[in-house]
Amino acid sequence: MKMPEQIVAVAARVEQRLADHLSGVRGPRQPPERLAEAMRYAALGGGKRFRPFLLIECAGLFGVKLENALDAAVALECVHCYSLVHDDLPAMDDDALRRGRPTLHLAFDEATAILAGDGLLTLAFEILATPQTHGDAAVRGALTLSLARAAGWGGMAGGQSLDLEAEGKPARIDEIRHLQGLKTGALIEYACVAGAILGRAASGDHMALERFGRALGRAFQLADDLLDVTGDETKLGKETGKDGGAGKATLVAALGVDAARAELERLEAEAIAALDHFGPRAAALIETARFVSRRES
Amino acid sequence: MKMPEQIVAVAARVEQRLADHLSGVRGPRQPPERLAEAMRYAALGGGKRFRPFLLIECAGLFGVKLENALDAAVALECVHCYSLVHDDLPAMDDDALRRGRPTLHLAFDEATAILAGDGLLTLAFEILATPQTHGDAAVRGALTLSLARAAGWGGMAGGQSLDLEAEGKPARIDEIRHLQGLKTGALIEYACVAGAILGRAASGDHMALERFGRALGRAFQLADDLLDVTGDETKLGKETGKDGGAGKATLVAALGVDAARAELERLEAEAIAALDHFGPRAAALIETARFVSRRES
Repeated sequence: MKMPEQIVAVAARVEQRLADHLSGVRGPRQPPERLAEAMRYAALGGGKRFRPFLLIECAGLFGVKLENALDAAVALECVHCYSLVHDDLPAMDDDALRRGRPTLHLAFDEATAILAGDGLLTLAFEILATPQTHGDAAVRGALTLSLARAAGWGGMAGGQSLDLEAEGKPARIDEIRHLQGLKTGALIEYACVAGAILGRAASGDHMALERFGRALGRAFQLADDLLDVTGDETKLGKETGKDGGAGKATLVAALGVDAARAELERLEAEAIAALDHFGPRAAALIETARFVSRRES
Repeated sequence: MKMPEQIVAVAARVEQRLADHLSGVRGPRQPPERLAEAMRYAALGGGKRFRPFLLIECAGLFGVKLENALDAAVALECVHCYSLVHDDLPAMDDDALRRGRPTLHLAFDEATAILAGDGLLTLAFEILATPQTHGDAAVRGALTLSLARAAGWGGMAGGQSLDLEAEGKPARIDEIRHLQGLKTGALIEYACVAGAILGRAASGDHMALERFGRALGRAFQLADDLLDVTGDETKLGKETGKDGGAGKATLVAALGVDAARAELERLEAEAIAALDHFGPRAAALIETARFVSRRES
């Protein structure tokens, strides 16, 4: 399935705004050039910008214009990019290829990769706390709190820790679900919830987006694991077959390809069912859920 | 010079509140035990808690009670501890000893150390965004923005990047001052500015604390570099003589010990002069400035 045109169009806007934020500032707070270059290498020139798209599209359900969701979306993408940089490090997944290019620690060096990840994570919170991102400090605060929870020890970072612990050990299916819910799910769920926060959504709407995000996050990871087994390295821009080689705990390994495909279909249906709540306004998000489970890269 | 009693007393409160925050939560956001343990190892059981003390003491100038500055102080300490963990990594300064114990990557492993640092940095922003930290979302937002700037690519992380680049190369004195201003200075200056933010200080007060923080930060780093040359490893709880061996750019190497000592005295006087503005209320901060430049560990 081809990527929906809306995702492509939003990705261009996200790329531009990311580049603006990563162009740095002049004066006493001007960042060192090598570190800034490394952060740009890690964040620019690639990526589907899927999480920013979700955030912007979910905010759009409540009439929030793209322009008013863009900075929050960029902050989220900074966190995603930081996580890729740190996960690729030799001490972690030791990956050589990312988005069709050498990973950051190979293109620069390991110390710079650690610092660039740290810098991107910190920049995300700087962006969220900046008044231009949203005029209401309470909204900025809610975005910050939710993002920190989604990214931190009880979220994405916790998931990566469990993933490393599980390497080479037989893992129960519920353990794999839990670690993937943290490692990949938390940030995708945040994208949807952040849209609700920006849109000052009523609690029913907020909860519907949480359900949508949770199912979508699980679908996204499962599709990723299937692509690692069945996908095309050229299209993906990263190495395939790594999970099996590294003894990674994946649902595909635990369930088998066919059962994993069936579960992916169920998750797609679950995500789309959560959107019923919003009626025809959610058409683009429905298409996104279909794309997530049927994508080839 | 002995550590002022106030610092010791505040450190105990900071330790306790840090331990509370690091005890983790139950339920779906419960962090994995190994990661939580690593974060506690990195953050608890040692440290002068100098930055939290500064923040609390500066907020106290405006009548803010310790209890109402404690969470912001703990968030700052989380950032400091994260920076120590990442700086100690093999790809960075490759240190074996910290606060008299093996560094985190030796006590656990490198991947866990990277993630624990990430987790502590993220937790800092989670704490700052939590309503209990301060009732006013605008104050929480201002703390978040200033901390992100102080810690990020144009602050502490940028300073560490410059420090690594400077290794083994002859560095100009102004370059060393600049990198140390970022690497160590930014967070110490933030501690003072955060006190002003919590105290809703008028701009004159705010600027006086900024001047104080800047001079104090430079004094702190210079004293640290002098201790690396002349200090006692047992008292310090970390290896000495490392800077010279690693070809680190320090002012002590560039100026010589005597000139560095003279500069330290000037910085101490400059810090204390900035406090004139506050009159006798600032007695504890004056004592702190004296301690910083005359400490033996």
